[in-house]
Amino acid sequence: MVTYAKRSAPLIERTSSLIKRIQRLHLSEERKRTGLFYVEGMRFVAQAVHHHAKIEQLIVCPELLIHPFARKLVHEQKKRGISILEVSRSVMERLSQVQDSQGLGAVVHQRWLRLEQVKPRGELCWIALETIRSPGNLGMILRTSDAVGGAGLLILGDQTDPYDPGTVRATMGAMFTQRFVRTSREEMMRWKRRSQYLLAGTSPGAARDYQEVSYRPPVILLIGNERKGLSPELQAMCDLVVSIPMVGESDSLNVATATGVMLYELFNQRRKQT
Amino acid sequence: MVTYAKRSAPLIERTSSLIKRIQRLHLSEERKRTGLFYVEGMRFVAQAVHHHAKIEQLIVCPELLIHPFARKLVHEQKKRGISILEVSRSVMERLSQVQDSQGLGAVVHQRWLRLEQVKPRGELCWIALETIRSPGNLGMILRTSDAVGGAGLLILGDQTDPYDPGTVRATMGAMFTQRFVRTSREEMMRWKRRSQYLLAGTSPGAARDYQEVSYRPPVILLIGNERKGLSPELQAMCDLVVSIPMVGESDSLNVATATGVMLYELFNQRRKQT
Repeated sequence: MVTYAKRSAPLIERTSSLIKRIQRLHLSEERKRTGLFYVEGMRFVAQAVHHHAKIEQLIVCPELLIHPFARKLVHEQKKRGISILEVSRSVMERLSQVQDSQGLGAVVHQRWLRLEQVKPRGELCWIALETIRSPGNLGMILRTSDAVGGAGLLILGDQTDPYDPGTVRATMGAMFTQRFVRTSREEMMRWKRRSQYLLAGTSPGAARDYQEVSYRPPVILLIGNERKGLSPELQAMCDLVVSIPMVGESDSLNVATATGVMLYELFNQRRKQT
Repeated sequence: MVTYAKRSAPLIERTSSLIKRIQRLHLSEERKRTGLFYVEGMRFVAQAVHHHAKIEQLIVCPELLIHPFARKLVHEQKKRGISILEVSRSVMERLSQVQDSQGLGAVVHQRWLRLEQVKPRGELCWIALETIRSPGNLGMILRTSDAVGGAGLLILGDQTDPYDPGTVRATMGAMFTQRFVRTSREEMMRWKRRSQYLLAGTSPGAARDYQEVSYRPPVILLIGNERKGLSPELQAMCDLVVSIPMVGESDSLNVATATGVMLYELFNQRRKQT
């Protein structure tokens, strides 16, 4: 078969360019340009499928794809016409940022809502933020938001990307229940007034204890960044600013911890009312 | 001065060996062998001094040591006889694992208590654990423990090192208020009975809601690892196991978030009693 080598060369080239494209999805600009992101591992791909995320392509390493559940998942997606890219173990490991990818990854379309599509519909709250520097912190916040029935993120400006691989990993798959809206301070404030959201923020300096307040729904929880918390301008936008009391040496809590404590306060208040 | 070169060579060698020794403190075995650890930045060194940590040596880069507070701190420690190692900017940056070391670091003696030295003295609780894999998670837990007036860690076995540089960084300096005890399951259980501690654990499968329980002091909060939570054996050791309710897709919270929610429950119960 003299033609074999001639035919397979372009195939290898095409595969290699697909792999490079996936690797580039680790970069924020490439995710912005393509509207795609990459997830790894059975749990994440299963969550993507379960929540009807639009899957562009499954990446499968047959040698590593041992788990029966994962094999079944791939088989079903193949039947549904999803493109499958088979790769070697060494390629899978090069693509992977985790120790155990289970031989399965997926290129997935990002999902963004416009603010005008969002109506209060009984969810616990939205979380609004401008900048969270650590992907791990943002992922933890999304994981907690999922746990308490939060709606998702209103991201003000373009500093924060919930589809960063570090963020995705730290959600442990919970991100697929969460909705994402990119907006601006001004647009959020107009929408908040129209839809009568209560905008609540936290600051260590605030006089009111976070447990003294009754958070009437619908609520937006506005959170600040790791270094400085909520700026005075963001605090001024809030309907109320509360403090989480502290008695130690620290002048602040980690942002994901503070958000977790606030989310559980909202959740516990709602649990007691129903 | 013919002898100058002869004298300065050993000095450079000695400095270089001191620097290598500090770099080796990033390794767990070296910290165990020496009983030392390394902290960077003004906030951390100031906290170490404030809490009377035993400082072996200050590492100072005069070119980067700009902040008046940091200069005063170094001056005072010098007067108290603390050894000062002056290093160049490039050496400081090689030593540093943070972007902005502020030209100041310290080699500090680890502080460990024996369990028999620990008596209940009105602190909110102790946190007991075997393994936390992520230094960031452990640091966050220590930061929250400081915030609510927690005593510190009872570390069962030798899997977890609170002096890991990633843990130290994530405490934001709060670790110096916390006490550390290395012990074993058996020793802790004997001590707990003798001192009548309430040993409380959390598990997503537990029937009792974490808010239904009154945590009578003194309390030990037992926390599991990131992957599997509390093992059945550890749960069996507890006087009570509670669950933090969740309504989303996740089957668990991040361990630092869950510990934060529990610590604030204990803290809020105590605040309401006094």
